[in-house]
Amino acid sequence: MNIDIERLKKNIIKIGSIGRDDTGGISRLAFSEEYNKAAEELKRLFEDNGLKTKIDPIGNVIGSREGDKDLPSIMIGSHLDTVKNGGLYDGALGIFAGLECISTLNDKDIKTNHPIKLVAFNAEEGSEMGGTFGSRVFIGTQYLKEEKLENKLTNYGLSMNDLKESTINSEDVKLFLELHIEQGGYLEQNNIKIGVVNGIAGITRYSINIKGEANHAGTTPMDLRKDALTMAADLLLKIDHISKSIGSPFVSTVGQLSIKPGAVNVIPGEVEFVLEMRDMDRKNIDYLMDEIIKYTNTMDEFQFKFDLLIDKPNVNTDPHITNVIAEICRNKRIEFDIMASGAGHDAKEMAAKVPIGMIFVPSKGGISHSPLEFTSWEDIENGTEVLLETILNLDDL
Amino acid sequence: MNIDIERLKKNIIKIGSIGRDDTGGISRLAFSEEYNKAAEELKRLFEDNGLKTKIDPIGNVIGSREGDKDLPSIMIGSHLDTVKNGGLYDGALGIFAGLECISTLNDKDIKTNHPIKLVAFNAEEGSEMGGTFGSRVFIGTQYLKEEKLENKLTNYGLSMNDLKESTINSEDVKLFLELHIEQGGYLEQNNIKIGVVNGIAGITRYSINIKGEANHAGTTPMDLRKDALTMAADLLLKIDHISKSIGSPFVSTVGQLSIKPGAVNVIPGEVEFVLEMRDMDRKNIDYLMDEIIKYTNTMDEFQFKFDLLIDKPNVNTDPHITNVIAEICRNKRIEFDIMASGAGHDAKEMAAKVPIGMIFVPSKGGISHSPLEFTSWEDIENGTEVLLETILNLDDL
Repeated sequence: MNIDIERLKKNIIKIGSIGRDDTGGISRLAFSEEYNKAAEELKRLFEDNGLKTKIDPIGNVIGSREGDKDLPSIMIGSHLDTVKNGGLYDGALGIFAGLECISTLNDKDIKTNHPIKLVAFNAEEGSEMGGTFGSRVFIGTQYLKEEKLENKLTNYGLSMNDLKESTINSEDVKLFLELHIEQGGYLEQNNIKIGVVNGIAGITRYSINIKGEANHAGTTPMDLRKDALTMAADLLLKIDHISKSIGSPFVSTVGQLSIKPGAVNVIPGEVEFVLEMRDMDRKNIDYLMDEIIKYTNTMDEFQFKFDLLIDKPNVNTDPHITNVIAEICRNKRIEFDIMASGAGHDAKEMAAKVPIGMIFVPSKGGISHSPLEFTSWEDIENGTEVLLETILNLDDL
Repeated sequence: MNIDIERLKKNIIKIGSIGRDDTGGISRLAFSEEYNKAAEELKRLFEDNGLKTKIDPIGNVIGSREGDKDLPSIMIGSHLDTVKNGGLYDGALGIFAGLECISTLNDKDIKTNHPIKLVAFNAEEGSEMGGTFGSRVFIGTQYLKEEKLENKLTNYGLSMNDLKESTINSEDVKLFLELHIEQGGYLEQNNIKIGVVNGIAGITRYSINIKGEANHAGTTPMDLRKDALTMAADLLLKIDHISKSIGSPFVSTVGQLSIKPGAVNVIPGEVEFVLEMRDMDRKNIDYLMDEIIKYTNTMDEFQFKFDLLIDKPNVNTDPHITNVIAEICRNKRIEFDIMASGAGHDAKEMAAKVPIGMIFVPSKGGISHSPLEFTSWEDIENGTEVLLETILNLDDL
């Protein structure tokens, strides 16, 4: 079924003008004035398309289209907030692709068995309350565990009661679908148009501390040194080598590293860095850590300390939904691949309570969180039509 | 000729009590109250040993013993200031070894042909005015080049005129001798009692910048990354490998490194670090830099930038003085080795105008700039007796 790409384009550009700065980037940070303005504008747009719409106390925008039967709803959505100086597509695309599906159903006067709900989440990008705040509260997970949450909420004019009022009954939801840009270069590099997501990677982070011996950089011969930075460099290459050998979708990254004492004329006595690992398979993360520990155990001249910082398990998408999406691509002769998501998404939070499916469209150069973020209108049209077919297919009784 | 090690010990411990803190460390920072107190105490001690003594406007303490003839003086000395929380020996030992030589000559009623001058320099350790400030002003080098010096001087209650009044006529100096702790582990490791210094290493520092590509740590597959930190780790190991292959006394050190953007979930797009190289032979420093540049030229996916930060040439000690010291060790059957100094010293500044000689005694564990700094009284006795013999030998006409 054909969607109207020109209408979709108009809508996404309209909301994209809110929070746009001189560099062409968009800053629509969670709970900001720009976010609230965009949410109000989106509410009007939802209503113009016949959706009964409300903005919940924490800023999620929810539009509802009635179904023929009294059934749990098919839910579609993504997030409306952006990072600072972000792009047009990350988050917003999933909302407007969903809206376009609904508009197309309206145009063709198609009724579905299930109600359809379209959600624009707030605060998916990192904030004081952590990422995917809007969807976590919405589906009712995690947020009550955070001890200091109440103080943080106050900063945003929110109460614990607002959170309760923003939480839905998950039994009212049949499934959740999210279309999102890939934010990586895999689809583009391989000339694939649709990524059918089979899961969202788990994230494990360790702080790794290496103690050697600080000493005078002029008077300590090379062979008497216990240079913690040289040891760290060796370990970083080892980690890179093992990570590559594990293969995709496993990734590991060291993005922060500090040296003590950190003077140009003192041999580093201590180095600390954060190792982040992501994969669909926990075994690979454990394998890398085991290999690191085995290797460092052979380095008698240094002391190593490993502290677990974060350990979020991976999440699987619903196999039936995944198969449906793949089958639609096959029928439409669209190049697709089954792939994992390395990034977290609202769908990952929704998966705690309801079956989820995710559709990725290509990101030019793999770039996101930047004004340079780009997905072609052709790729967006493809993705939106796959989303629409998926909704119709899953609307079975 | 035997010196009185008990007297030397008493003197060094007496001055070492000034600026001593709870941890056992000594903080006698240049221009501090503690420094000034120590300088006054030292002046009294010099005078008690028959030296005509003055403290010059910048805080150097100079004691003079007459010679039999109207000749330029044999000068001995080192620095009285310490780093924060430093040790008992770094600097102070050279002053008290010199004083002990003079006391011994007094005891034995030995007159020398040349006058002997004993100098305790201020501000050898790093300060706002850079290291070896006292000796640089004293011998009259460099200090006039610094444009902002006048403002800095004001902070210490000093004027440019004070500097002029603190500068001696180098023609009045025949040679300069400095006894110092090694501050490295070479002598101790090899059970050598005396290091006869043949030169002080030059120091060259480059800032090395590596540009790769920052990207999402979750969505960018390992094989599509241009991780500037992984590239830096590879280069650090290359530098370590080449530096070790060059051999002693060449040393290279990377003590500072920074990552951009420096977030745990973003692949490092840029890394910058400072490479310090020290050697007696400039060719080795150039060789390492050439090898680095050759290697980085093969890394097409990264951009490299090299900025020269500091380039201080090496300085040779006087070959005749070096030979005299070595010959004295041989005659006294003291284990010695000819070696370069990786650290800078007051003698390095004096070398700009007068012949210099340096004697190293062992540092336990190679440790300095720490309360753990230690040299045995036996090693100090050895070193002081070698210094005394050197003075007597060089007192020829």
